[in-house]
Amino acid sequence: MTKVLVTGFNPFNHEKINPAIEAVKLLPDEIAGCEIVKLQLPTSYLESEKKLKTAVEKEDPDFLLNVGQAGGRACLTPELVAINYDDCPIADNSGDKREGQAIDPEGPAAYFTQLPVKDMVKAIKEAGIPAEVSTTAGCFVCNHVMYYAQSLRKEHPGMQAGFVHIPFLPEQVVKRPNTPSMPLDTAVAGLKAAIRAFLLKAD
Amino acid sequence: MTKVLVTGFNPFNHEKINPAIEAVKLLPDEIAGCEIVKLQLPTSYLESEKKLKTAVEKEDPDFLLNVGQAGGRACLTPELVAINYDDCPIADNSGDKREGQAIDPEGPAAYFTQLPVKDMVKAIKEAGIPAEVSTTAGCFVCNHVMYYAQSLRKEHPGMQAGFVHIPFLPEQVVKRPNTPSMPLDTAVAGLKAAIRAFLLKAD
Amino acid sequence: MTKVLVTGFNPFNHEKINPAIEAVKLLPDEIAGCEIVKLQLPTSYLESEKKLKTAVEKEDPDFLLNVGQAGGRACLTPELVAINYDDCPIADNSGDKREGQAIDPEGPAAYFTQLPVKDMVKAIKEAGIPAEVSTTAGCFVCNHVMYYAQSLRKEHPGMQAGFVHIPFLPEQVVKRPNTPSMPLDTAVAGLKAAIRAFLLKAD
Amino acid sequence: MTKVLVTGFNPFNHEKINPAIEAVKLLPDEIAGCEIVKLQLPTSYLESEKKLKTAVEKEDPDFLLNVGQAGGRACLTPELVAINYDDCPIADNSGDKREGQAIDPEGPAAYFTQLPVKDMVKAIKEAGIPAEVSTTAGCFVCNHVMYYAQSLRKEHPGMQAGFVHIPFLPEQVVKRPNTPSMPLDTAVAGLKAAIRAFLLKAD
Repeated sequence: MTKVLVTGFNPFNHEKINPAIEAVKLLPDEIAGCEIVKLQLPTSYLESEKKLKTAVEKEDPDFLLNVGQAGGRACLTPELVAINYDDCPIADNSGDKREGQAIDPEGPAAYFTQLPVKDMVKAIKEAGIPAEVSTTAGCFVCNHVMYYAQSLRKEHPGMQAGFVHIPFLPEQVVKRPNTPSMPLDTAVAGLKAAIRAFLLKAD
Repeated sequence: MTKVLVTGFNPFNHEKINPAIEAVKLLPDEIAGCEIVKLQLPTSYLESEKKLKTAVEKEDPDFLLNVGQAGGRACLTPELVAINYDDCPIADNSGDKREGQAIDPEGPAAYFTQLPVKDMVKAIKEAGIPAEVSTTAGCFVCNHVMYYAQSLRKEHPGMQAGFVHIPFLPEQVVKRPNTPSMPLDTAVAGLKAAIRAFLLKAD
Repeated sequence: MTKVLVTGFNPFNHEKINPAIEAVKLLPDEIAGCEIVKLQLPTSYLESEKKLKTAVEKEDPDFLLNVGQAGGRACLTPELVAINYDDCPIADNSGDKREGQAIDPEGPAAYFTQLPVKDMVKAIKEAGIPAEVSTTAGCFVCNHVMYYAQSLRKEHPGMQAGFVHIPFLPEQVVKRPNTPSMPLDTAVAGLKAAIRAFLLKAD
Repeated sequence: MTKVLVTGFNPFNHEKINPAIEAVKLLPDEIAGCEIVKLQLPTSYLESEKKLKTAVEKEDPDFLLNVGQAGGRACLTPELVAINYDDCPIADNSGDKREGQAIDPEGPAAYFTQLPVKDMVKAIKEAGIPAEVSTTAGCFVCNHVMYYAQSLRKEHPGMQAGFVHIPFLPEQVVKRPNTPSMPLDTAVAGLKAAIRAFLLKAD
């Protein structure tokens, strides 16, 4: 049975909730006849690596989808590419603050996702939910995990990996004027459409 | 029994749906022990006047809440004030295009709402839904109806009237990049919180 | 000789500069054969009233144009209307914090400007500078002064009065990511085009 | 004498002007004691390659800075990275429309710039002009040229290359409501600060 490992981050930067892990928890255990395995990742450069590596080794998934929060974006954004660069003015949940350093000094400048981002966007839109391909996953833990996931393909070459960013929840923008948001069930419906899209494409 | 007349507009400007009337339809028939009467208004300067006048005369409501779509806004916006001015580059559904003319040449420059917009915003936010007081309802049919509703208070001085704008639906922004949206059930929950707020305030 | 009194506010809310008074200072002393008299106003509900009243009595201008900063806007915005309402989460420069009170309890709900805002926008755009009519001057000292200026027309019925908001300067947004700005000389050129437009219209 | 080759694109997508080449033309012929050589590039995937290659071979510059327009951005954005991917819903000036294809099927997924983008941003801001590091140059001809420029370093390993995006001009946004802009002289001052920054850093 085809297996999809889907991860979501825990809250960071003084937020009490992270829509990414909340949305992942609400995914069904099966989509398009494939098994969905769910995993929470810490918003930490190094801790997320450890936890992701262990899970990939244990589950040996056919697909890996990391989900993260992109505060300020108005729609779901499948990510095209991860770059070899950590840089953020805020520290991660382990207190690790990085300023322009390589994720892997020996690694390539970037990795493209194996997931069909344009098909995913098309499927999300057909479900009535706004989506766009993004060409930057930022330079914080989201991009880091997307990059690191690709490096795990050396040991798991059959695994296709990718990333989807989701907006703030409505309750997160109550104190942020003029900021777009998306409720959890809308984000979940969009993720389901995206997962179904890459599973059907791979058939 | 206290009665609230809630109106929503039909679609305009090539849209197939207007979240305003769809949200209004989904309101319960009773909120906080008060009766909710629902009415669809045409997006037409003159036709909306006729239909609203007839309904107010028939129902003689204690409260009148008009609901309209404000494409591009990210949150629910109770309106503070309506101005005596029609002006829009697009025509209404009756083909009526207005360029800077008074709604009522004998009327005041503006009317403030009787509804407690700050309490409504507070209540919507407490329900986890973003909201802000707006100081402009624009110059199209929304502002026109909000202004006209106030003029009906001459014959119905006990009636308190106001307006709430709601964002595009997600399916409306699928073809509008970087545009905020709000699903129908979120808008409905916000409207319920707003209505409850002005009913409780009036007690 | 036709006389135009042009005012600009001093800095507020921890800013070191206010583009409004800086732009006003750079206006020529004559536009389209008319005299331009310049005045700085304090960003204070009450102090601005006093200073404006004294100047209008002394100068008895044919035109009064108040200029203020609208941080976050991307273009010049001639204001259509001022409302009878003071409300702002920040205090003015006199420490006066107002929460939803009338400017003049006996005054009308709003005053429309006498200036031809559509002609002003057209003239500014023809000068290659972005502009739009605004239907809200907010609820802080800008709207307050625009409203108060209209009330001075009781004593000066021949005076035409209005308001133009201008964006942040580039140096003000250096610490505000993703915020539009407009350099001083561009704002000044836009103001000149706007003033010329209402002077020519009045001819 | 240290030599800097600075390029700017010609207009595209129905625009009559491209601020990139206009800003480049206004740069001085010498900055910080270094020679500035200017070149216009066509907004064409293939033609820009040819013209850039010829110029780099002829001039053998120590630094190469490509400048392009990023409509909708509010500040100057030095680019961190170029990705191996062409994709745009509009065709280039040669009628070449690309949908998700590699720039160089044998090339790396991305190239990082050699220019010190953080120092450049700091210098631009110190000049009172807003700037931010960007992590995506898009997928159109700008990113293409930035990627291609890096590939020229195989033959010119001493050349440091990078890219800066500049906003629309004010006259370009006259018909685009709510869109940020930056006048030419502000963009030119920012580019000068950026060039000075990488020249001084390299000393």
